[in-house]
Amino acid sequence: MGVVIPLEESKNKQASVKPLVELTREGMERVNQLILSKAGSDVQMIPEVANHLISSGGKRLRPMLTLASASMFGYQGEHHVKLATAVEFMHTATLLHDDVVDESDLRRGKSTARMIWGNQASVLVGDFLLGQAFRMMVDVGSLDALDVLSTAASVIAEGEVLQLSVAKNMETTEDEYLSVIRAKTAALFAAAAEVGPIVARTDKSERNALKSYGMNLGLAFQLVDDVLDYGGKSAELGKNTGDDFREGKITLPVILAYRRGTQEERAFWRDAIEGGNSSDENLEKAMGLIQKYGSLNDTTARALHYGAIARDALAPLPDSAWKNALLEVIDFCISRVN
Amino acid sequence: MGVVIPLEESKNKQASVKPLVELTREGMERVNQLILSKAGSDVQMIPEVANHLISSGGKRLRPMLTLASASMFGYQGEHHVKLATAVEFMHTATLLHDDVVDESDLRRGKSTARMIWGNQASVLVGDFLLGQAFRMMVDVGSLDALDVLSTAASVIAEGEVLQLSVAKNMETTEDEYLSVIRAKTAALFAAAAEVGPIVARTDKSERNALKSYGMNLGLAFQLVDDVLDYGGKSAELGKNTGDDFREGKITLPVILAYRRGTQEERAFWRDAIEGGNSSDENLEKAMGLIQKYGSLNDTTARALHYGAIARDALAPLPDSAWKNALLEVIDFCISRVN
Repeated sequence: MGVVIPLEESKNKQASVKPLVELTREGMERVNQLILSKAGSDVQMIPEVANHLISSGGKRLRPMLTLASASMFGYQGEHHVKLATAVEFMHTATLLHDDVVDESDLRRGKSTARMIWGNQASVLVGDFLLGQAFRMMVDVGSLDALDVLSTAASVIAEGEVLQLSVAKNMETTEDEYLSVIRAKTAALFAAAAEVGPIVARTDKSERNALKSYGMNLGLAFQLVDDVLDYGGKSAELGKNTGDDFREGKITLPVILAYRRGTQEERAFWRDAIEGGNSSDENLEKAMGLIQKYGSLNDTTARALHYGAIARDALAPLPDSAWKNALLEVIDFCISRVN
Repeated sequence: MGVVIPLEESKNKQASVKPLVELTREGMERVNQLILSKAGSDVQMIPEVANHLISSGGKRLRPMLTLASASMFGYQGEHHVKLATAVEFMHTATLLHDDVVDESDLRRGKSTARMIWGNQASVLVGDFLLGQAFRMMVDVGSLDALDVLSTAASVIAEGEVLQLSVAKNMETTEDEYLSVIRAKTAALFAAAAEVGPIVARTDKSERNALKSYGMNLGLAFQLVDDVLDYGGKSAELGKNTGDDFREGKITLPVILAYRRGTQEERAFWRDAIEGGNSSDENLEKAMGLIQKYGSLNDTTARALHYGAIARDALAPLPDSAWKNALLEVIDFCISRVN
């Protein structure tokens, strides 16, 4: 417990999403065009709300995964651009609904759509984007891709409801939490990566490789996000630190600190998370306990574990610039904690 | 203005949805089985929320339309059952989200899901049902049916956002209102009826006939609902009367009364609808103005117009028990105002 895991510092410090960005630059320009076109509507509020979130500076990792996972098999057409856009719309719809469900005021430092246009518009514009996503999938015409993405849509929603059920329950186990993030976050990463080989018409083993890569990358990505919310490895209070704590969200750093704590410490967590006592003073104390039990290091260790699985999932594929870029994304995701 | 339209009383008094119910009885049993199965989940809250609404005694007109519009062309398989279930799930998802958007406490005299499980669960279970609906469509494997239903999903959401934009604006015109209900209500009726001929693999003219039937039936259905909300032709205050008024909803009876009113009466409407002064006293006064200007009769006349178009849409099709049942549904929908 609390052992510092060597993070292969020298390598990770260099890890970057840039090679993937460079390789997908031309494709992402087509994705961005399609996003603007398909978020358009005569109903003015729709592009307003959609563009607020779409232009808010997300990394667009998911659509890049779809482009890369098709291009690495030599795919040259337009289908991967449409599916990448559909994936980004599914993600955007989820964020719009999430902000309503979590009653969030801020996302990436900006007011959420629900704070500007209200919960109503956020729910409905999310529904619209989901409908548009399905129309683009239908346009591509691949029933296999439709199967993967519609299943992901169900699984994501199911994961969100599961999260609601376990919310503010400090007895949540690590396994239960993993089920939640597997459904909420990793399923869309997996689907985004799996539809690439589908449109490239490769064989089943390559589909499965990319699906496993996406799923495990998604788990690593979410766990690192959980660490970052408590300030990363340095565990210093930044201006975006502690949002999960203030919202009473149970994430792996909290689960580990709770389960490793004394009776008194566990009472503190229940009061803070279940009882909603998320004062700055309590946040400081929570950070101290998380430090005491090495919860951030150990959550990062879990992320490294899933990152390793993602890496091995791609191992049988021939070397290429695409494959290297996807491998570097794993290191990049994890290196964010440093 | 205010002319009483002859409603073909003798015929309409007998009109019933029963022939359609009888003809689709066996198919609807399979739909009901599939609803229970596909609303199931290990996440307990999902079937709880879904079944609350699904078992709340709706007429299930939309899935019956899908079954009938396939069976009338001799279709014998299982695809229409799956699409009918998908249509009902799309409808249920819309209701769950609508109740959140409208902040409704009651639906069909029962507490809404959001009052029992909260807005969060209503948004997310709606998303889950929408995902399951798409999975069933994918399972059927018809890209044409997927195209029709995914387009309907976008159009419905777009119509809801449009309604939000025009909400509480008394200058809304009849045309604008028709755009809203065409998207919000009629589009799903049209899609439900159009996918029948698609799975039965009939020709394009039969698809268009059923689509037009569904679209115009949906318009008539919604306009009659608007009339019923003000007590129907008798315009007596019943216990469910006036909900639209209390929620500040602008419907055709209100639009007609407002546009035909004096300056003073228009000021009253703006105060009541835009200003939210929906006291029982004001409801009584609103009912009086609606009576004075014959708004309920004239809204019913509009419904009859769309009902006539729906009837003519089916005219070229050969006579059959199925066709007669669908025609009787038009009269049944409109006869509800008497």
